[in-house]
Amino acid sequence: MFARSIRSSKSRLPRRAIAARYFSSLDLIPDEFSSPSVKTEKVPGPKGLAASAEIGSFQDPRTHVIVPNYEESKGNYLVDADGNVLLDVFAQISSIGLGYNVPALLELAKTDEFAKAAMNRPALGSFPPVQWAEWLKTGLLTVQPKGLDQLITTLCGSSANETAFKCSFMAYRQRERGGPDVPFTKEEMDSCMDNQTPGAPQLSVLSFKSGFHGRLFGSLSATRSKAIHKVDIPAFDWPAAPFPELKYPLSEHAKENDAEEKRCLEEYEKILTESKTTRPVAAVIIEPILSEGGDRHASNNYFRQLRLIAKKHGAFFIVDEVQTGVGATGTFWAHEKWGLKEGEEPDFVTFSKKMQAAGVFHKKETRPNAPYRNYNTWMGDPIRALQAREMIRLIKQHNLVQHTASTGSLLADSFKSVFGSSVASGKVMNFRGEGDGTYLAWDMATPQLRDTFVGKMRVNGVQIGGCGEQTVRLRPMLTFGEKHAEILVGTTEKVLKDL
Amino acid sequence: MFARSIRSSKSRLPRRAIAARYFSSLDLIPDEFSSPSVKTEKVPGPKGLAASAEIGSFQDPRTHVIVPNYEESKGNYLVDADGNVLLDVFAQISSIGLGYNVPALLELAKTDEFAKAAMNRPALGSFPPVQWAEWLKTGLLTVQPKGLDQLITTLCGSSANETAFKCSFMAYRQRERGGPDVPFTKEEMDSCMDNQTPGAPQLSVLSFKSGFHGRLFGSLSATRSKAIHKVDIPAFDWPAAPFPELKYPLSEHAKENDAEEKRCLEEYEKILTESKTTRPVAAVIIEPILSEGGDRHASNNYFRQLRLIAKKHGAFFIVDEVQTGVGATGTFWAHEKWGLKEGEEPDFVTFSKKMQAAGVFHKKETRPNAPYRNYNTWMGDPIRALQAREMIRLIKQHNLVQHTASTGSLLADSFKSVFGSSVASGKVMNFRGEGDGTYLAWDMATPQLRDTFVGKMRVNGVQIGGCGEQTVRLRPMLTFGEKHAEILVGTTEKVLKDL
Repeated sequence: MFARSIRSSKSRLPRRAIAARYFSSLDLIPDEFSSPSVKTEKVPGPKGLAASAEIGSFQDPRTHVIVPNYEESKGNYLVDADGNVLLDVFAQISSIGLGYNVPALLELAKTDEFAKAAMNRPALGSFPPVQWAEWLKTGLLTVQPKGLDQLITTLCGSSANETAFKCSFMAYRQRERGGPDVPFTKEEMDSCMDNQTPGAPQLSVLSFKSGFHGRLFGSLSATRSKAIHKVDIPAFDWPAAPFPELKYPLSEHAKENDAEEKRCLEEYEKILTESKTTRPVAAVIIEPILSEGGDRHASNNYFRQLRLIAKKHGAFFIVDEVQTGVGATGTFWAHEKWGLKEGEEPDFVTFSKKMQAAGVFHKKETRPNAPYRNYNTWMGDPIRALQAREMIRLIKQHNLVQHTASTGSLLADSFKSVFGSSVASGKVMNFRGEGDGTYLAWDMATPQLRDTFVGKMRVNGVQIGGCGEQTVRLRPMLTFGEKHAEILVGTTEKVLKDL
Repeated sequence: MFARSIRSSKSRLPRRAIAARYFSSLDLIPDEFSSPSVKTEKVPGPKGLAASAEIGSFQDPRTHVIVPNYEESKGNYLVDADGNVLLDVFAQISSIGLGYNVPALLELAKTDEFAKAAMNRPALGSFPPVQWAEWLKTGLLTVQPKGLDQLITTLCGSSANETAFKCSFMAYRQRERGGPDVPFTKEEMDSCMDNQTPGAPQLSVLSFKSGFHGRLFGSLSATRSKAIHKVDIPAFDWPAAPFPELKYPLSEHAKENDAEEKRCLEEYEKILTESKTTRPVAAVIIEPILSEGGDRHASNNYFRQLRLIAKKHGAFFIVDEVQTGVGATGTFWAHEKWGLKEGEEPDFVTFSKKMQAAGVFHKKETRPNAPYRNYNTWMGDPIRALQAREMIRLIKQHNLVQHTASTGSLLADSFKSVFGSSVASGKVMNFRGEGDGTYLAWDMATPQLRDTFVGKMRVNGVQIGGCGEQTVRLRPMLTFGEKHAEILVGTTEKVLKDL
């Protein structure tokens, strides 16, 4: 057994960052580890492999990366079954907001309020707790995206998206029908029971190539990430528009990128137009950064145009912020930076992951015209609303959105310095995400090199994630700061050197 | 303000029940209320209405029944915002297993283990906690249905069913393809990205009229409960077979019921056969009691035949135990009583609701042939697995399945006595569920009378639920016992008298 403590020998962080100290993860997690430490030759080590094999007797273990010891993990550091301490910049596929075992959150978990909410789980649609309005008004509703003051809670991102789809279909048909008071016809009510038109209408959701919106049947029909996610599963005949294939950094290729975005917008509008005679598009769904599909970015203008063109063609506009929401891109919601004017806001914004609670923000006009049209047993989970409320309070108290914006900026500078040096030559390309907080990404020369890189980073103490074919994506927590950035960049440099 | 304490004046319970004392809810909830108490003229009262209106500013309040104070609720008694104490035999749409604020569960919620599991929510498919195998092997897996030793955890019943659908489609195509090692074709991989055949195949799930399987896009396509659940939502062109329209009590109408079941089985087999040339049925899904559709029952032989005919036609067989599972029907799983032989077990059994954890039990042969085919971020929630483990322990320790079977039996006798008397004449019909634990139900003469009955029960201290068009269904918790039964039956008798 041997222990390797990993520190970069020389800081790559620009001086301005070191000068100003806004927030340290120690403010929230005083006992956070100070650096990674890897004890086993390989990660996972023998205990991790044994734990994974034991799970394998009843559950598919092939997707296991490591088997963590969550009780020992702290802040930005994940401890595994073998006692290895890893700096975690993947954060459970982008779903840990503030860190592992944050004392303020553990304190919340030990309150009577939380315990009773956990053990008396209500059917929220029919029997909401007497504190429900207070819990949301002092929590989730305080971060409602501009213009969207209605909130449907759900249990996960896929069901949030499908709820937005359902509301879109209902509102679309209501408009066609002539308003909320026009009754359904007998033919509609009869035919829907047989899954036939007109009651089950031939309407569609338009999504984008490389987009990811979940893996239930409706959301999977809109997902276009990878064939292995979709093959053998029946799907709705819904259209996919091309997402611009841009050159990075965006700012240095403005002219050719503009042309590509224009081409894609035209194709998008063509689909919206032509589908009117086959399966009209009731809703368009887009991620502000196409994440699972390989961290693909586009300009603010492109997204603004998407929204305006959807409106022009009568399609509702859904922004899927399941992965991008909750501060990590440098604004609370990633779509804030698009600069949509009043009246141009999205119709729906969906969230989950880092928020721990999941759901859909929307406008009152897309509330269904009758009760029980959007309904299920649980309709969310109060304990996740309580957890979100406390996280939102901490995010505000510590200015973590601003912290993440500035950390992201210095991190981007450091990476550019490494990636511009000889260690990265021929190995790293398309560095992107500058200006999107810590949601930075780059491509490796080949898919194999990406997998090797990610594996070597782990053995060197950093849990980092991939996406798309050959992309590395950063998804650190909001408490990720300078000292973590230093370790991350230093380890990246070291691993690149050895590749 | 006035308080009405509600006790039935004369016990309707048969003597044998009073003689033997197996279990009292006080064993688990020592401070449970002893009877309902209604303080307000109407239920909900003014505070409940105000709380509901406040929620109404951001969320649809039209489905609210009452606004409970969960912190004050205890055992089988739900306290509302106005301080009314109601005997709850609806149990959050059948999803409270043991009662409100059960001390043993609150104790669990206060442990470090639970708090850390709540606040360090893992992406289970890639980073399962080191205790994951232990938590399941000492919990959920101890109640695995016979023959099903694999478990995929999910977050809700709808996603459990959709996971079973996806596994069925993959396994069906794999069989057509010639086994797990036959690779996908390029055409399949390309076409699935466009939601087209052959990659997105024209396969179907067969469900039954009046069946309910959830409200996401795949599960909703299989749901056939009510038009208002389905209208305006695009659906897959999947077939529905008739469910037998039987006369109750089943035992008194065996001959005509046999004929109706035979007719329905023939129609079912005809659909399975004919769909082979259009959209072959990859899976059949059925509830042991069609619950939302109006508590519809059929014989054990009917269900056995369903399973055998599915097998004959190469369709996987999914038993949806989301509402019927976890002991309330007098066996842990409702399908146990069908008497399926070894090798005839269902391919999938789905669960949620009372289990608090949700998921799919299945066989190793339906594990997808490649990783990431069944995958999502959370894949369940460890705290719900911990909660399920503790509930299962308590259920076993207190023999609550047997307790529920015997309580159900005496409850059925008492109801038969009331419903055979003049107070029920012309108002109540089709009493059913005898032999299915406490999952008893009956029809009222009209839908309006049903709604009036349910409303008057509430004002008289009993929260009871409806289903179907004019059905009243009982869904008490597993700790429901003699003394609750006495109050329930007494109140029913009183309300019927006043109708």
